[in-house]
Amino acid sequence: MRSHTVERVEITPVAFADPPLLNSVGVHEPCALRAVVQVHTSSGLVGLGETYGDAAHLSMLERAAEAVVGASPYDVGRLWAVIGDALAGRNAAAHADPTGTALTGKMLGSVVAPFDSAFYDLQGKIIGEPVWALLGGKHRDTVDFSAYLFYKWAAHPGAEPDAWGAALKPDEIVAQARRMVEMYGFRSLKLKGGVFPPDDEAAAVEALHAAFPDHPLRIDPNGAWTVETGTRIARRLGPVLEYLEDPVPGTGAMAQVAAQTSVPLATNMCVVENGHIPEAIRQAAVQIILADQHYWGGFLASMHLASLCRVFGIGVSMHSNSHLGISLAGMVHLGAAVQNIDYALDTHWPWKREDDDVVDTAHLTIRGGAIAVCDRPGLGVELDADRLARMHETYLATEIRTRDDTGYMRRLRPDYEYICPRW
Amino acid sequence: MRSHTVERVEITPVAFADPPLLNSVGVHEPCALRAVVQVHTSSGLVGLGETYGDAAHLSMLERAAEAVVGASPYDVGRLWAVIGDALAGRNAAAHADPTGTALTGKMLGSVVAPFDSAFYDLQGKIIGEPVWALLGGKHRDTVDFSAYLFYKWAAHPGAEPDAWGAALKPDEIVAQARRMVEMYGFRSLKLKGGVFPPDDEAAAVEALHAAFPDHPLRIDPNGAWTVETGTRIARRLGPVLEYLEDPVPGTGAMAQVAAQTSVPLATNMCVVENGHIPEAIRQAAVQIILADQHYWGGFLASMHLASLCRVFGIGVSMHSNSHLGISLAGMVHLGAAVQNIDYALDTHWPWKREDDDVVDTAHLTIRGGAIAVCDRPGLGVELDADRLARMHETYLATEIRTRDDTGYMRRLRPDYEYICPRW
Ligand SMILES: [Mg+2]
Ligand SMILES: [Mg+2]
Repeated sequence: MRSHTVERVEITPVAFADPPLLNSVGVHEPCALRAVVQVHTSSGLVGLGETYGDAAHLSMLERAAEAVVGASPYDVGRLWAVIGDALAGRNAAAHADPTGTALTGKMLGSVVAPFDSAFYDLQGKIIGEPVWALLGGKHRDTVDFSAYLFYKWAAHPGAEPDAWGAALKPDEIVAQARRMVEMYGFRSLKLKGGVFPPDDEAAAVEALHAAFPDHPLRIDPNGAWTVETGTRIARRLGPVLEYLEDPVPGTGAMAQVAAQTSVPLATNMCVVENGHIPEAIRQAAVQIILADQHYWGGFLASMHLASLCRVFGIGVSMHSNSHLGISLAGMVHLGAAVQNIDYALDTHWPWKREDDDVVDTAHLTIRGGAIAVCDRPGLGVELDADRLARMHETYLATEIRTRDDTGYMRRLRPDYEYICPRW
Repeated sequence: MRSHTVERVEITPVAFADPPLLNSVGVHEPCALRAVVQVHTSSGLVGLGETYGDAAHLSMLERAAEAVVGASPYDVGRLWAVIGDALAGRNAAAHADPTGTALTGKMLGSVVAPFDSAFYDLQGKIIGEPVWALLGGKHRDTVDFSAYLFYKWAAHPGAEPDAWGAALKPDEIVAQARRMVEMYGFRSLKLKGGVFPPDDEAAAVEALHAAFPDHPLRIDPNGAWTVETGTRIARRLGPVLEYLEDPVPGTGAMAQVAAQTSVPLATNMCVVENGHIPEAIRQAAVQIILADQHYWGGFLASMHLASLCRVFGIGVSMHSNSHLGISLAGMVHLGAAVQNIDYALDTHWPWKREDDDVVDTAHLTIRGGAIAVCDRPGLGVELDADRLARMHETYLATEIRTRDDTGYMRRLRPDYEYICPRW
């Protein structure tokens, strides 16, 4: 058979409206960037991947795209080596140039991932099986997602307010949660913290617990707290949290908090590539790793990660950045195929306008806090060329080329300073 | 597509002649046992697996066989759960019965493995791709094997001598190595030890080094030595060994030897299931894990194991028991698909008569110490019904139902005692 080989790759950066969501490093800019990767085979099939749209990432994707020409869509296990070799020149250059950035495992995983996605999509299209089957079968028929609550402004400066309104106080966060739960049926809630003083954010979590006593809760200050603050808040919120995400920056600090509290600690910051795992395990720094196919290297690498977590008794949940439907479809396939997904997955999905997408996502509707796992071949989503073109136009129209929440915040509030940990 | 479902499973125990190979627990019996697992789909395809043929194992296979009826050949990732559930009753019974044996991870992995093999074989046959492609692609075009040297008698008592003759002294081991290298071109040599006093075996390794100065060498006494002996021999042989396999029994003892020598330690004894890994890593007890799809749970689980080893900087090699061609084909596929196979794989292949097999193995010939990776769909081997029937007859004719090297030795040498560690 061996007749499906990669002939060419198209990489299309796109942009879409993003609300002014606040976090520990600033505020989301008016546009979020993504890149759509289309892998075309000699047999006329197209496999899809979705990844980050930042300029530096795009240039690495272009180099990787050349390297995968001629590969078989079954070569998912070789992508790290093939793409790693292709980017090695860049890496050597970065080491030689003090202003350059060396290629980390996370960066390489991020470049590998959309190709891994596209290759699995192709495999599924070739044989008529969904990606979850190619990953070993599904362990569930629906995949749970959590509400992702944000402190936010009512609008970007100079723009119309969005439908969500401002959320700066505990009662506004509770109102946001109510609306999101009404719309999507989420059965667990996560608050993005690191924005206001820790006790104010703890009060918001307590208000959420009072309003939703049966919903598991999480808060993620993105490492904005000191060990002392993290430990204090962990103890205060312990009884109401299912886990505390990245209270403090770095494996060492996480280990110190973990040693002083019984609340499980989760991370998508201090363990983001294989190289971070041994030390985190040695220090018992994290109890839950947030898998994310977009930087862990795709589906295959994420399956390996989940297996490793199982061996070491580490829980698995999933991290999200602002994303489109190709990514969402991938999360559902992975969420179905990983046996030890122990928590509802994060998603920014509700913060995106429904018609802002490059694929039809009607079958990916979140109902009762979950998305039904479907049997369509591959990822189960088809690219809409018109919508892709329109969203690429949006990309061309925006000046944003690299996500910079801090820079945007500083333009709006010149006295804003990025400090980590802040409290 | 989803039209290929498992309809029925055939499990056929077979037996074949085995020479009197000596080891730390006794001597190989005149017949080795294996079981051939045929998984038939509703679509008329047959997938193959090969596993142990011991009586207790056969009864677990039968129970597992019922549990997989109705599954899709893509459900490889669900086999642990499905078969684990099916065997849970047995496990509960074993816990209740003090004479019973609780189900270990290794036992469950051993039952899962032939189904995983058959499922991948089916997937490959369905789509026309070799198993190595389904595992993510091949990292090499040939897979290296090592010569597996044994102390041995000239013949089983009362039988005709085999072509290899006796090997009880260093010069006889060197002669065995010469013959095996001439026949197969092996470029690394392993001596099964634990049979004679450690210094005698060390002398044999040194004789091998003198005769084959460029061949990497290994010795495997199967945990027959004390920490003191293991450390002493490790230091003596360090300069000529690529690794020392299971010098001492148990993770704690291995860690003590590892701390006192720079020779890498390998194991297929103290780390044989996922549950053993965290402690072995914590203690830095082993530097190389011998993967073996037959007890690690098949191809998928072995790929996960290799990935984990890579994360922790642990080397990967492969363990062997007496086996037939289905197993050998599987080792080649796995050996091609695992990126970090760092050593030539063990195989008992030369100790088996060429015509003793259930499949045609002409394309699996070892030349230059390696087997060429082939593109045939699935495992690439087809069952020969006549040969299967003949080898099943051999099984029915032998009285052996459970491998018992110690019992056989004690019948021949009533003063033989199993002691571990012996020296
Ligand atoms: Mg986070
Ligand atoms: Mg061994």
